[in-house]
Amino acid sequence: MALTDFMDRHLPQIEMELEKCLPQAVVYPETLHKAMRYSTIGAGKRLRALLAVAACQMVGGSEFSSLEAACYRFAAAVEMLHAYTLVHDDLPCMDDDDYRRGKLSNHKVFGEGLAVLAGDALLTESFALLMQLVDLAIPADVTVKVTKELALAAGSRGLIGGQAVDLASEGQLVDAEVLRYIHTHKTGALFRAVLRGGALLAGASDTELEAVTTYAEHFGLCFQITDDILDVIGDEAKLGKRVGSDLESNKATYVSLHGLKRAKEMAKETAQAAHGAIQIFGDNRVLRELTDYVVARDH
Amino acid sequence: MALTDFMDRHLPQIEMELEKCLPQAVVYPETLHKAMRYSTIGAGKRLRALLAVAACQMVGGSEFSSLEAACYRFAAAVEMLHAYTLVHDDLPCMDDDDYRRGKLSNHKVFGEGLAVLAGDALLTESFALLMQLVDLAIPADVTVKVTKELALAAGSRGLIGGQAVDLASEGQLVDAEVLRYIHTHKTGALFRAVLRGGALLAGASDTELEAVTTYAEHFGLCFQITDDILDVIGDEAKLGKRVGSDLESNKATYVSLHGLKRAKEMAKETAQAAHGAIQIFGDNRVLRELTDYVVARDH
Repeated sequence: MALTDFMDRHLPQIEMELEKCLPQAVVYPETLHKAMRYSTIGAGKRLRALLAVAACQMVGGSEFSSLEAACYRFAAAVEMLHAYTLVHDDLPCMDDDDYRRGKLSNHKVFGEGLAVLAGDALLTESFALLMQLVDLAIPADVTVKVTKELALAAGSRGLIGGQAVDLASEGQLVDAEVLRYIHTHKTGALFRAVLRGGALLAGASDTELEAVTTYAEHFGLCFQITDDILDVIGDEAKLGKRVGSDLESNKATYVSLHGLKRAKEMAKETAQAAHGAIQIFGDNRVLRELTDYVVARDH
Repeated sequence: MALTDFMDRHLPQIEMELEKCLPQAVVYPETLHKAMRYSTIGAGKRLRALLAVAACQMVGGSEFSSLEAACYRFAAAVEMLHAYTLVHDDLPCMDDDDYRRGKLSNHKVFGEGLAVLAGDALLTESFALLMQLVDLAIPADVTVKVTKELALAAGSRGLIGGQAVDLASEGQLVDAEVLRYIHTHKTGALFRAVLRGGALLAGASDTELEAVTTYAEHFGLCFQITDDILDVIGDEAKLGKRVGSDLESNKATYVSLHGLKRAKEMAKETAQAAHGAIQIFGDNRVLRELTDYVVARDH
């Protein structure tokens, strides 16, 4: 299946699942639920959800249709967890961003206190959603495995660790090693867990899981390099944030460390390596095209 | 077993478990792990952990020894989750408290950004710990049930919902109904999940679970009424925070709504109701004495 067909088929389903899984805005306390929905519904490219579904489909093959409902629930949990990280990252005491995805950031609309709580709630509810996998034909032991993946990836030795080092590095020039730590943890760990989680839902063998993991690691790197490139050459209107902000804040990026030309080569090399990793799967077109999509994106 | 013996036996084990389960302070990124440990290790009465162990022991009876390791892991997860709520509650954008349990609050020592992250990490790691229950002889389906309890209790229709309403009510006089919502959600929901979780670990029947739930609801109420009383008549040195702060901030409490005398009666009545709920268990002395301990505590 081509990526465009894949997106046409699954993106509306993912949005519907999120709409259904998030507490409605009329549920008390309404403002909290409005704040949770504000930063989750209709926002973002759903890259993590798409990766989860793609991995599950690639590994599951013809079995995928029986896994679809569980896979969407997993995808919704992942997007809620991702949304929490953005809400907290934008806080004045963190990156202090007034805009996110072209609209006011959560704390600018709802206030800092509620933004902290909305983020906390998105994180907590994402774990509650994962526990529902057992109601959707996923065995309890697989549910535990998938949840463990996500919790470790999102924890202090994963995503939050990366954010903590990023926070500590602000305004300082950091070396390539620290930069790599920040990226593999702040963004890479979640990509990895999402892809592995999708594969585990489909009952991946050890070999299959290893292939997906290698893909995930190259994909994460490719994503971050492209992100850094876009901060230099991107279109502000499409990005929904100011271009050159990394440069201004003296932030280490792949471009500042290696130059624009080399960074572009690196993006292509990591995409190639990602493709190579999943050659063992016959039908891997969606995940191949997803890396190309990441390299070619302009927002 | 008397409560003092119970505490002598289990409190050191709970502390050891927390010490073991929290990432060591030398693990990178060190400051994040120091911040997580600062607000968790050697702090607090471990009331939630004790409730979890007591419920597990009451339901498990002679089977308890085989459940002990899992029960301590669960108790550690619960205390980490509780610690996260305190770290975030103390933030300037929330209750803005400089002190907690007699020492500087997390953000005063580590800064606001890291305090947000340390809280996020304590919450996330508590779910990672729960996933380890399957390695400690707890079946995967029970692990999922226990985790669901905790996630729902800690979520937007539980603990965080209560905190959101509390935040929105600051500086306003609220009626008894809103006050009850805040307390049953902000503190009550977690007590309930912890007690039910302990009972579920021990394989509680529906009847047993119902009895524990009724106990939990009375216990939660009793705890909150006593908390409000202590804010008026407590000893600042022992409480580790300023007395009268609720009054100053115009916060609704059981004392401000019902008067001190009636509030004291209510505390005793709810403790009695809690005792009544667990009469079906032969050996329920620890949980009975725990309500008395809560009513009699001076900090």
